[in-house]
Amino acid sequence: MQTLAEDGDAVLILDQTLLPREIEQRRLNTLAEVAHAIRAMQVRGAPLIGACAAYGVALALRQDAGDDALDAALSTLAATRPTAVNLDWALGRMRRLLGPLAPALRAAAAWREARAIAEEDAAANAAIGRHGMSLLAGIAARRAGREEPVRLMTHCNAGRLATVRHGTALAPVYAAHDAGLAVHVWVSETRPRNQGLLTVWELAQAGVPHTLIADNAAGLLMMRGQVDIVVVGADRLAANGDTANKIGTYLKALAAREHGIPFYVAAPVSTIDYACPDGAHIPIEERDGRELGAGVEVPVANPAFDVTPANLIAGIITERGVFPPGNLGASA
Amino acid sequence: MQTLAEDGDAVLILDQTLLPREIEQRRLNTLAEVAHAIRAMQVRGAPLIGACAAYGVALALRQDAGDDALDAALSTLAATRPTAVNLDWALGRMRRLLGPLAPALRAAAAWREARAIAEEDAAANAAIGRHGMSLLAGIAARRAGREEPVRLMTHCNAGRLATVRHGTALAPVYAAHDAGLAVHVWVSETRPRNQGLLTVWELAQAGVPHTLIADNAAGLLMMRGQVDIVVVGADRLAANGDTANKIGTYLKALAAREHGIPFYVAAPVSTIDYACPDGAHIPIEERDGRELGAGVEVPVANPAFDVTPANLIAGIITERGVFPPGNLGASA
Repeated sequence: MQTLAEDGDAVLILDQTLLPREIEQRRLNTLAEVAHAIRAMQVRGAPLIGACAAYGVALALRQDAGDDALDAALSTLAATRPTAVNLDWALGRMRRLLGPLAPALRAAAAWREARAIAEEDAAANAAIGRHGMSLLAGIAARRAGREEPVRLMTHCNAGRLATVRHGTALAPVYAAHDAGLAVHVWVSETRPRNQGLLTVWELAQAGVPHTLIADNAAGLLMMRGQVDIVVVGADRLAANGDTANKIGTYLKALAAREHGIPFYVAAPVSTIDYACPDGAHIPIEERDGRELGAGVEVPVANPAFDVTPANLIAGIITERGVFPPGNLGASA
Repeated sequence: MQTLAEDGDAVLILDQTLLPREIEQRRLNTLAEVAHAIRAMQVRGAPLIGACAAYGVALALRQDAGDDALDAALSTLAATRPTAVNLDWALGRMRRLLGPLAPALRAAAAWREARAIAEEDAAANAAIGRHGMSLLAGIAARRAGREEPVRLMTHCNAGRLATVRHGTALAPVYAAHDAGLAVHVWVSETRPRNQGLLTVWELAQAGVPHTLIADNAAGLLMMRGQVDIVVVGADRLAANGDTANKIGTYLKALAAREHGIPFYVAAPVSTIDYACPDGAHIPIEERDGRELGAGVEVPVANPAFDVTPANLIAGIITERGVFPPGNLGASA
């Protein structure tokens, strides 16, 4: 089942707020439905948000393809989530293509462009898988003779569910698994939204060995020597390599450095914000405190992302190759 | 309401598996009931476990005060939880007192000794509060003129609920609050058992300002400069200062060092295992994977504690003063 698929003149999504308990698709017919799906995290993951938003523009233009309607669609979608830059990237691409076109041509062009964004995401992630698999194969080669799998730790869900296809952080895992290279994945629960359960679900479906842990357990596992590599996705990379990703990523990066474990970020170049100088300029979404589930009367702070400084990152795995975080300009 | 109180010839505990949803006391009449209460975490927190286990010995000896019964009671209680050394400490104290006594004298002596352990815990924690408050007052003094409170981060629950009275990590908070020194507490949820909700509950009861966060948010808050000091409890300190505490403590300690934030451990000297050379020798309890609540078919690793190396710790706040972790011998 795909995370995002065309269905006549609408799009079908897998409702990720119900997974893994229920597998249910939703049919999105309008701009408002797409905006709600992104805001409520029925659709989530930076690359998937970008592709879904592009379809949202296309759906809006079916109703009204005038300049005002285009502007309104773009700004409505841009306001849904602040941190994932793939959203801005996809909307910017739609604006540049559609703005100069006559309104009568816009709806069809928008649909084609949304489809292109989706297909390019799938292709980019497949390439990320190939580049990342080389890193895993290198680890396996250095331990030749030992039978245990490469032990990869990830955070949140940067798998198939976060993208149109293949995943970002998990693309190398799937590529390795398909190639017969044994990998075991440590999956952190990822409070408060528990996206680790999405990762468990998709790894189980793919037959990839994995173990769920509380986010709190990451440091102990690294101290015990049970982690060979950390690979996470990203919601926005600044030009200097500082990386915003799901809250808790930074703690894992600090622990990885302490124990000499390479820490990689896997993301398509659409996640790189070349105009953003560093992590301090990345907006951090603050979400509803009720997501922690402690009841309405408890004071809660609930930042959804944190920033991992470039100096903690061994490399950025993109569809164009693996770049040192200090040389992201070469990926443009 | 007290965490542990005598009630005729039984003991009353507050069932901490029901808090904060329900406030319910349980009456423990037998050794088996005490052992179950500790194992199931109805009674939790290293100092409280020690005192409760002492009463468990006393209850057992009411039935049978012979040598075999004493040995059986001590070994049953010792097997309930492996990491908190206060349990071994309290049981060792009972063994040394009761072993040489004639059986006819044991039951009454055991009850008196359990009461002494409980009262000493309350007194020790009050002293921890006084010593720790000096640290908080020092932070407040260095920022004279700024009106904001001292912003303390803790982990798990090392408060009143984890002790007979006053708490360990929270004892300085309560002492400061009572003295009119403004403190705000960042409370991390503490997955998988959510003891942060116990901390929220007791801070709210005491009127101490606080904010609940996901465990994952600790690094971002420190990076943003929103934390002045970290104070946690402990389940066992090795002689070299390495400290076992609730899983996730180590990640907070790494982040605190990264941002120059002092990281303190607050514990009575009964938590120091002078015979244990370093953290690698501390047994780490692995608990049932179902505590994560992901369903029975998900592979889970659930270590309940981690070890924070002494070099990340600014000081150990005990009832005998604040010691550098490298000089714990001076506390003996």
